[in-house]
Amino acid sequence: MGIRVAVAGASGYAGGELLRLLAGHPEFDLVTATAHRQAGQPLDAVHPQLAGVDLTFAETTPDVLADADLVFLALPHGESAALAARLPAQVRVVDLGADHRLVDGDAWTRYYGGAHAGAWTYGLPELPGQRERIATSTRVANTGCYAATIVLALAPLIAAGAANPADVVVVAASGTSGAGRAAKTHLLASEVAGDLSPYKVGAHQHVPEIKQATGATGLSFTPVLAPMPRGILATVTALPTGEVDPRAVLAQAYADAPFVHLLPEGRWPHTAATLGGNSCHLQAGVDVDSGRLIVVAALDNLGKGAAGQAVQNANLMFGLPETTGLSCFGVAP
Amino acid sequence: MGIRVAVAGASGYAGGELLRLLAGHPEFDLVTATAHRQAGQPLDAVHPQLAGVDLTFAETTPDVLADADLVFLALPHGESAALAARLPAQVRVVDLGADHRLVDGDAWTRYYGGAHAGAWTYGLPELPGQRERIATSTRVANTGCYAATIVLALAPLIAAGAANPADVVVVAASGTSGAGRAAKTHLLASEVAGDLSPYKVGAHQHVPEIKQATGATGLSFTPVLAPMPRGILATVTALPTGEVDPRAVLAQAYADAPFVHLLPEGRWPHTAATLGGNSCHLQAGVDVDSGRLIVVAALDNLGKGAAGQAVQNANLMFGLPETTGLSCFGVAP
Amino acid sequence: MGIRVAVAGASGYAGGELLRLLAGHPEFDLVTATAHRQAGQPLDAVHPQLAGVDLTFAETTPDVLADADLVFLALPHGESAALAARLPAQVRVVDLGADHRLVDGDAWTRYYGGAHAGAWTYGLPELPGQRERIATSTRVANTGCYAATIVLALAPLIAAGAANPADVVVVAASGTSGAGRAAKTHLLASEVAGDLSPYKVGAHQHVPEIKQATGATGLSFTPVLAPMPRGILATVTALPTGEVDPRAVLAQAYADAPFVHLLPEGRWPHTAATLGGNSCHLQAGVDVDSGRLIVVAALDNLGKGAAGQAVQNANLMFGLPETTGLSCFGVAP
Amino acid sequence: MGIRVAVAGASGYAGGELLRLLAGHPEFDLVTATAHRQAGQPLDAVHPQLAGVDLTFAETTPDVLADADLVFLALPHGESAALAARLPAQVRVVDLGADHRLVDGDAWTRYYGGAHAGAWTYGLPELPGQRERIATSTRVANTGCYAATIVLALAPLIAAGAANPADVVVVAASGTSGAGRAAKTHLLASEVAGDLSPYKVGAHQHVPEIKQATGATGLSFTPVLAPMPRGILATVTALPTGEVDPRAVLAQAYADAPFVHLLPEGRWPHTAATLGGNSCHLQAGVDVDSGRLIVVAALDNLGKGAAGQAVQNANLMFGLPETTGLSCFGVAP
Repeated sequence: MGIRVAVAGASGYAGGELLRLLAGHPEFDLVTATAHRQAGQPLDAVHPQLAGVDLTFAETTPDVLADADLVFLALPHGESAALAARLPAQVRVVDLGADHRLVDGDAWTRYYGGAHAGAWTYGLPELPGQRERIATSTRVANTGCYAATIVLALAPLIAAGAANPADVVVVAASGTSGAGRAAKTHLLASEVAGDLSPYKVGAHQHVPEIKQATGATGLSFTPVLAPMPRGILATVTALPTGEVDPRAVLAQAYADAPFVHLLPEGRWPHTAATLGGNSCHLQAGVDVDSGRLIVVAALDNLGKGAAGQAVQNANLMFGLPETTGLSCFGVAP
Repeated sequence: MGIRVAVAGASGYAGGELLRLLAGHPEFDLVTATAHRQAGQPLDAVHPQLAGVDLTFAETTPDVLADADLVFLALPHGESAALAARLPAQVRVVDLGADHRLVDGDAWTRYYGGAHAGAWTYGLPELPGQRERIATSTRVANTGCYAATIVLALAPLIAAGAANPADVVVVAASGTSGAGRAAKTHLLASEVAGDLSPYKVGAHQHVPEIKQATGATGLSFTPVLAPMPRGILATVTALPTGEVDPRAVLAQAYADAPFVHLLPEGRWPHTAATLGGNSCHLQAGVDVDSGRLIVVAALDNLGKGAAGQAVQNANLMFGLPETTGLSCFGVAP
Repeated sequence: MGIRVAVAGASGYAGGELLRLLAGHPEFDLVTATAHRQAGQPLDAVHPQLAGVDLTFAETTPDVLADADLVFLALPHGESAALAARLPAQVRVVDLGADHRLVDGDAWTRYYGGAHAGAWTYGLPELPGQRERIATSTRVANTGCYAATIVLALAPLIAAGAANPADVVVVAASGTSGAGRAAKTHLLASEVAGDLSPYKVGAHQHVPEIKQATGATGLSFTPVLAPMPRGILATVTALPTGEVDPRAVLAQAYADAPFVHLLPEGRWPHTAATLGGNSCHLQAGVDVDSGRLIVVAALDNLGKGAAGQAVQNANLMFGLPETTGLSCFGVAP
Repeated sequence: MGIRVAVAGASGYAGGELLRLLAGHPEFDLVTATAHRQAGQPLDAVHPQLAGVDLTFAETTPDVLADADLVFLALPHGESAALAARLPAQVRVVDLGADHRLVDGDAWTRYYGGAHAGAWTYGLPELPGQRERIATSTRVANTGCYAATIVLALAPLIAAGAANPADVVVVAASGTSGAGRAAKTHLLASEVAGDLSPYKVGAHQHVPEIKQATGATGLSFTPVLAPMPRGILATVTALPTGEVDPRAVLAQAYADAPFVHLLPEGRWPHTAATLGGNSCHLQAGVDVDSGRLIVVAALDNLGKGAAGQAVQNANLMFGLPETTGLSCFGVAP
């Protein structure tokens, strides 16, 4: 018997992708999947892509999760903190939700509302020293999906003193699965088809998380909903602090990161190449006309942006190779 | 008999949309449509959406165009200038191509290659004084589709002294019809599905046109190919020069423009709402975190970005109401 | 002042398309649009493609509709019959819903549930003699969108004795707007992307309507939800009764129908060519291997399948040319 | 060192999927990938989803393939037979092309043109006795993608005497990757978006293959191109021979097939649930109105319809468990 795993809130899109990854993981054994409204239903009634999996959703309670070695929380914000507080200390927990990402309680309250539950180890192994911190943590907060994309693109440039942190401009577009599975009119296929739609302009809840993880002090972030199920493409620009080779900075930062690929010069990241895998593709340059640094990052919001990242973190927490049960490669076309 | 109209290069997407608009125009009578490779074919064999139109493509020569009152050129760059030079002076010409947009011959050569044919009246009626210039011109250069979107968003802010022209950052995504109808692997449906793909980063040929039409002096422009057939969404940010209300500036600039809609506060433009119409939707604000001005613009690249704009220009050139044969409204969902 | 028009239930997709068509109609003046949940909201808050229209949704009551010359009902089934019963006799009414399509009350109750309100004149002008019946009716029942497609493909072949009515097999796929605008999980963009999904197999409520309008006695009908916002493609096969030229039958049946196009041999209908227009494209042949007649029909479910057809019927009811305010041509690509 | 594998013609979509599957296969080691036009390019320049794979395309010659233990041929029809004839007898070969599928040379010539190369073992392990035949073969012909879908749905019903083989009607829609990666206008994203488009009506080259593998004697097959990158949905109807429970027949036929899932009653297959996996989902019933048997099948044309099936066959040929390196589960949404 391997490591016993439970997933709480497994009826959504990140939960479903987590179940798919766990089904192919050689060390993690899924023993429990919970969902509130779908309790009692077979997993594959809710996730038809898992046809043949023989398991039924349990109700989401601390009791059904308590005897797992590892619990993934894929719950709405606010709910995961409440549940996590009732789990035994020795159970390792990865929270895919937002509850434990922010250090700044005021920022939490401003962007999410309600009381702040406190910060856990930030689950982006590619940040300096973070791989080691994750490996020794029993509680890890997965990043936001936009945040993962933008932080991977930006953090090394600010850390290296190459980019001015005071005037960062980001436009990032996401596939619809990033908006969740709740039935909302503006997410209907009829509305989304052929549509690019900005939202929460300048007010997205990932702004404080990105600033915290990168050191950016001024951030203009415009998120856009794109007509595709998965994928985030982020265009990040910043003023250089001098003569800078952004490719060299990124190459060094991710030399040992198995899931972050700086593409060869001349090839720009695009989302379809990352679908279903755990990779983030990067490219960088200096804009000829404006002189701004420009970094483009692409990843699968349900993969490296959520479920894949969660498995990567859990691998580290259990001393497994970081890549166990994960693929670098996308499903294309 | 109304005004006799010919379309040269009518086999592409902008040409097809032009034919559709002309079919519903009360004053313009399509008498000739030309295409090189499709000469001799019925229009509706090439454009199945025009099933029932009883006309055949002619070969593209000056002779077949010369007795029209109005000629639209929808040809690859380089070709329209050569053809236009051989048309009688009294024939009014709207060029949907790039040949006559730029005043700066060096910029032309750098971005397009080859000799510069010289500039015509710039075909964006919503710029100050431009409506009148177009009305008295016999040669008008339609704008680029990205340029139309970005210029409409940005020009009034720079003209009003509200935005710093030295550090403008634009990310704009376009549907695939903007890339034309030539068979290329990277434009295949299999490649584009679920994909956001940046290209010509910092090097797009509309950069000099946008700078010329807006007065921007530093422009970072990242174009992105989006998985949809039509539509451009541009996110334009710039540093404010002081206390600025960008909505007020735009409202004043477009008070009399029938096709430019500044949306009510709280609603952001999205591309699907503009499909098939000649409108550009705008919204603006000040980014809370960074203080940058942010303007979002959406339009149909084949409508207001190409064929619709061309008809609008032609209406003005013939003294017709600007809106003749055009719709403000999109086809949605 | 032209003909005064009201639309009840105008917040859905068919209602929105109707508002768009009415905005461009030279004789019909929209005076009232109603919606239940959106009462009090501007039309363009609900239909952003109509940005700039200056009208507000009224509550759906008989009173606000009673002084119109023409009322379109775009309400859920059951509701239109109740409302129609309270409208003055002299008001002409076109019901886009299902309430008055079926002659057979038992079939109504079996497929829709509840009491049958009785049949109105069936609103498909292309059926023999139907144009005249519609012109003299004050109450007309628009057809179902699948029904319109399949009836146009099949009815002439059965009427001519060319096809065996006892064994008709139809597979038809529809864009998502046919499923309405209510927020349902299975209609989310994330679910629909890349997905073909059959539903109501052998049990679709348009089965009795198709049989009634074509004379088919045995009908296998499999509807499929397709990843696109609009369009229906129906493949209809039936056993021939002898040596039959199905193209000749269709050509004769639709010789005078401005919106039904039998394509030239070798070209098959496809949905994108009909988007936004009021046309139905047809092609027919005899399957080499099986000997079955095969007819393929394509139309826009919101156009000829709903709002366009409704305007066409209303044109006839008011003695206007059938084509007034409608286009044969699609918006493509 | 494991089993040495080469892929010839690996630059297309089926080839790319094969490379992805091989990268995760525990026993097969990719040593050579060939392509004609892309020879000398890195694999990930052609397949960006494989970013980081360190291999370069070789020219397609018998020599570079001859020392592999296993060769997959993913070449245009006609080319694979020529190449296979020059490979050593002991090399095991799976041909993803059509060259060796048909027993009937006349049918080959009629549908494909040119000389017939002769039939190999038909690569659909789920047919009775076929798993064993494949296991003892050194040459296996993968099925067509439509054929795989339709044969899995239909073959058991005819074999059991439950369905009349003389009047089978199939409508099946495929994602665009089934049409290959060659740049063709009708496959452009702009053309395919929002479009359902029938083609080769009654004349598809998989007709003789389906008849050969199922025993159908009369087959009406209408293929439709659907606006999605992957997936086939086939609706198969046939007249029953008496009182038949088609679900029982299918359940028995696939009781031991790990990749064929008869869904629980009430759930119909849809393509998105099979994306990226090797499963075929089935459901069956009797049409209430017509009495026809109806079977719906869904699979991924690049998975179970091509590359996944090829790996499954190769697993059998090398005595490995059929499921080695393959997943039952789809990537959704």
